[in-house]
Amino acid sequence: MAVSANLVKELREKTGVGFMECKSALQEANGDLDAAFTILRKRGLASLAKKSGRETKDGIIGTYVHNGKIGVLIELNCETDFVARNPDFQTLAKDLAMHVAASDPRFVAKEDVTEDVLSGEREIFAEQARATGKSENVVEKIVEGRISKFYSETCLLEQPFVKEPSISVREHIASHIQKIGENIQVRRFVRYKLGE
Amino acid sequence: MAVSANLVKELREKTGVGFMECKSALQEANGDLDAAFTILRKRGLASLAKKSGRETKDGIIGTYVHNGKIGVLIELNCETDFVARNPDFQTLAKDLAMHVAASDPRFVAKEDVTEDVLSGEREIFAEQARATGKSENVVEKIVEGRISKFYSETCLLEQPFVKEPSISVREHIASHIQKIGENIQVRRFVRYKLGE
Repeated sequence: MAVSANLVKELREKTGVGFMECKSALQEANGDLDAAFTILRKRGLASLAKKSGRETKDGIIGTYVHNGKIGVLIELNCETDFVARNPDFQTLAKDLAMHVAASDPRFVAKEDVTEDVLSGEREIFAEQARATGKSENVVEKIVEGRISKFYSETCLLEQPFVKEPSISVREHIASHIQKIGENIQVRRFVRYKLGE
Repeated sequence: MAVSANLVKELREKTGVGFMECKSALQEANGDLDAAFTILRKRGLASLAKKSGRETKDGIIGTYVHNGKIGVLIELNCETDFVARNPDFQTLAKDLAMHVAASDPRFVAKEDVTEDVLSGEREIFAEQARATGKSENVVEKIVEGRISKFYSETCLLEQPFVKEPSISVREHIASHIQKIGENIQVRRFVRYKLGE
């Protein structure tokens, strides 16, 4: 059975498991996402769902300074001090700080976009679409597409990861959750640009 | 003429010039602060007043991370890129970031303390003083003393500099203004403590 790229992407985002494994699980499950997820879990690949719920109380503050002109602080949480001292985890924090310096996100996650901002964007996109004479049905679809683009431009977790733009920052973190075996979360970040 | 320590301190803060020079200028000026300032300027020591008014558009973003658990960003401004690349200036930025990590100030300067916070503090201090049965006159003086202590505890520029607690951060910066010959200003800072 042919499996759509979107479905593979969804499973990858949910689990952080690699492309080929997700595709094969989806083929085996005839495109059923939940069944494919169970298959991955049985194979010991996807334990992310459980880990994502675990409390993250430890972690580190990562920093990155570009040329002395842009500075970033990021709080990256994990579950134990043991992982906080893991070089892979520390590299992840550094890479994410560098990503924030380069890509200038406004929010950590979709959920952090305030209702005000969102409805403002929706209105602008709808006006633009209506101005082209499209029907309301089509306008709605266009708006949804634009909002999804808005998320991928402004939310850290949805942005293409600067060091590997074919995956999102969320996927990059998910692969570390898989590898390290602890839940990992970006709690907050701040970016200073000189004179801004 | 004997010159009070407070007066010497005031002149030092205004100019960033050393203790002995300030004391001698004040003695010569019979304790007149403005006249002593003029004397220092004539001696080529105090050009700070002029420099303090100059626009600071350049600078650097300084960072400091303590143990991976506390992180600081600080924007330190100067007038030119030439000074921004000066190692003394960069060390100053690093030291100030370290100071913020250690001393956890809430504001840059006295002027940044909001009226709300200030009147709240005043009220608490006044209540405390009144509870000891002091007259309103004395209460007022106690409140002023407490507010000045509040500034030196919460405002970066008023805090004792961690690496040299006998001077304030303001004085430490002033000595760099003297040495480097450009106006230097702390524009903003942010401090992340893990899990806070």
